[in-house]
Amino acid sequence: MQNVEEYFKGVLNFSDEDFKFLASKMKRVEFSKKSEITKIGRVERYLSFLEEGVVRLYIPKEENDLTFAFVFKNSFVSAYDSFLKQSPSEYSLASITKCVMYRMEYDDVQEIFNSTSIGNRIGRLATEELFLKKAKRELDLLNKNAEERYLSLFTERPELIKEIPLKFIASYIGITPQALSRIRKRII
Amino acid sequence: MQNVEEYFKGVLNFSDEDFKFLASKMKRVEFSKKSEITKIGRVERYLSFLEEGVVRLYIPKEENDLTFAFVFKNSFVSAYDSFLKQSPSEYSLASITKCVMYRMEYDDVQEIFNSTSIGNRIGRLATEELFLKKAKRELDLLNKNAEERYLSLFTERPELIKEIPLKFIASYIGITPQALSRIRKRII
Repeated sequence: MQNVEEYFKGVLNFSDEDFKFLASKMKRVEFSKKSEITKIGRVERYLSFLEEGVVRLYIPKEENDLTFAFVFKNSFVSAYDSFLKQSPSEYSLASITKCVMYRMEYDDVQEIFNSTSIGNRIGRLATEELFLKKAKRELDLLNKNAEERYLSLFTERPELIKEIPLKFIASYIGITPQALSRIRKRII
Repeated sequence: MQNVEEYFKGVLNFSDEDFKFLASKMKRVEFSKKSEITKIGRVERYLSFLEEGVVRLYIPKEENDLTFAFVFKNSFVSAYDSFLKQSPSEYSLASITKCVMYRMEYDDVQEIFNSTSIGNRIGRLATEELFLKKAKRELDLLNKNAEERYLSLFTERPELIKEIPLKFIASYIGITPQALSRIRKRII
């Protein structure tokens, strides 16, 4: 769990001891590519840290799923609104590539929240990260056109975007795969 | 600050002592209606608790502002992404009605975060609340049509929605004021 350790100690400033406590609550899990991680209609049980891989969040549709978010490595991943409210999730999570994550169960997270100060700190920082993503996404949807949204995703994650099938990117940007192909041709 | 006290003690479970400490960092401010609270391009300095009134978040436009969120009383209000990153805000905040809020300065919030456990608790809970709103809004935009979005806002806040000018509600829902008038006639 090298990335996890680097992230919590480096980015989040956790001490050795704090990290050891946290790590004792985390369980390593692997998903092969295209695996279901959280199913729509179920309650999200985990707050996870994604060490390796790419995950998509989507509303399953008969024709084409509505993919509305991607999560890349070294981030928290969860159907976090379902997790916080412990109510059924309105969307699904699935791996795009092979994924490695460290996950914490809801009850453990609550215990950490209620009995430690680092718990609230990790809770605050995880929530801030997820909030900032949502806020950025909202402004992107309101203020940018499809080409600008594609370029923004492409600029942030030039290597990783190659691993994501075109149809998911098109859905995320809010256009058809054909329209996305035309944008890509124009740019390259 | 009765509502503030009820919210923090009742909803957030703060003790008398914790609340007293927090209250010492909060400053009461009033805004008359249609006042600018945070200006686009400026860094958000405050995390506030709205005790009375309605606030809108918007991107100023030459013709019609793009109003994308409302905040009602007994909630946190802030250009929170700008506040967290201490970078210029991409949108403005303004009062719709007369507003009373209790606000905390960035440096005080950081001090509370770094030196107390209730600080991280309030930070986590404030962020969770703001996150859940964004998540709900995103799913509403993806999954509901204009009429459903209007009904959802109307059902949540039947009394308060009367205080919001039609043009702001139309912008929030993503339609013209004329189209909104037609929806309202159909419903009533």
